[in-house]
Amino acid sequence: MKIGVLGTGMVGKTIASKLVELGHEVKLGSRSATHEGAAAWTKEAGEKASNGTFADAAGFGELVFNCTNGAGALDALRAAGAKNLDGKILVDVSNPLDFSKGMPPSLFAGNTDSLGENIQKEFPGAKVVKTLNTINANVMVDPARVAGGDHDVFMSGNDAEAKATVQRLLMEQFGWKHVIDLGDITTARGTESYLPLWLRLWGALGNADFNVKVMR
Amino acid sequence: MKIGVLGTGMVGKTIASKLVELGHEVKLGSRSATHEGAAAWTKEAGEKASNGTFADAAGFGELVFNCTNGAGALDALRAAGAKNLDGKILVDVSNPLDFSKGMPPSLFAGNTDSLGENIQKEFPGAKVVKTLNTINANVMVDPARVAGGDHDVFMSGNDAEAKATVQRLLMEQFGWKHVIDLGDITTARGTESYLPLWLRLWGALGNADFNVKVMR
Repeated sequence: MKIGVLGTGMVGKTIASKLVELGHEVKLGSRSATHEGAAAWTKEAGEKASNGTFADAAGFGELVFNCTNGAGALDALRAAGAKNLDGKILVDVSNPLDFSKGMPPSLFAGNTDSLGENIQKEFPGAKVVKTLNTINANVMVDPARVAGGDHDVFMSGNDAEAKATVQRLLMEQFGWKHVIDLGDITTARGTESYLPLWLRLWGALGNADFNVKVMR
Repeated sequence: MKIGVLGTGMVGKTIASKLVELGHEVKLGSRSATHEGAAAWTKEAGEKASNGTFADAAGFGELVFNCTNGAGALDALRAAGAKNLDGKILVDVSNPLDFSKGMPPSLFAGNTDSLGENIQKEFPGAKVVKTLNTINANVMVDPARVAGGDHDVFMSGNDAEAKATVQRLLMEQFGWKHVIDLGDITTARGTESYLPLWLRLWGALGNADFNVKVMR
């Protein structure tokens, strides 16, 4: 499958590399077509990997991952272009982290709205599925590294078919055992608001290799 | 031990009843000394139970639980009186839920501050320990009803000794197997911000008998 990955940070590169490893053709998108980090990634990731602008990557992908940092997510998606996202599944992994008020970061959305909803509102032609935003990048693509994979990832989105496709990708390809469908895209408020707890757990536990399991 | 419990809602009555059951003397505090619900609770809970004003309950307790609803918590504590809280452990179970913007509720604190911190700031003589605010009342006092108790409760507070006392109460008396100390009272932002996810999980799972376990 052809997949576009927007964002060249740790999350974007980790997901893009995993997708290449799984046999997908992946274009990593960044602000400029000659982004050094993206070019270096392309060289390292092999022949199924390429890079370009946000618009190049979104146009290339049959499915698109948004792995940009939250503060720049809407701008990056505007650069990607609504027509390059129309009718496509947009897997939104970004978090509305605000680093301007000190560490650990606070949130600029997640309470009476969410970044996931704001993206869906501005790009109504895209099928936004919010997921993977509650764990560290390494755990996203290798859930078994934590407790043998015995923990949960959440999913929010308005389109049932898009969520089913993303769930298959998560389970059959990334190796997730449990995906909890929270409901429509407004439930992204739940997972985005969880980030402050994730950040304190990271501080208390001393490393990012953890995740929650919902016990019933 | 003599314990004051502020708040006559589901959380206050459930915790107060559990404490009586454990053999403690408990005074349930509410806005008025003749609160009908509180009086009914006293009658039902037996001779170790009593009720009175917020000030009566706080003055009575060697340890005080704040189980008021978040929006009224600071007012209730003002009515309880700083001198009745000085030097005492104040277990803060309240959440900053804002029901004014529709359901599910949003938060009026938890991002760049928290209700726990605001209480600690206004009552510097109290030793505020935020805990139990991430689960349903029935699970708070009977963790074994969910997955045999195999899940986590969090704790935030500035006073190590107070946290150790609360941890013993949670483990030895309420039956919690795992208590995660997140750090100082600012980490209450983590657990208060988790509420929106709890609310969506409640919606998705269809009942409140659940809790998270941190898998590593």
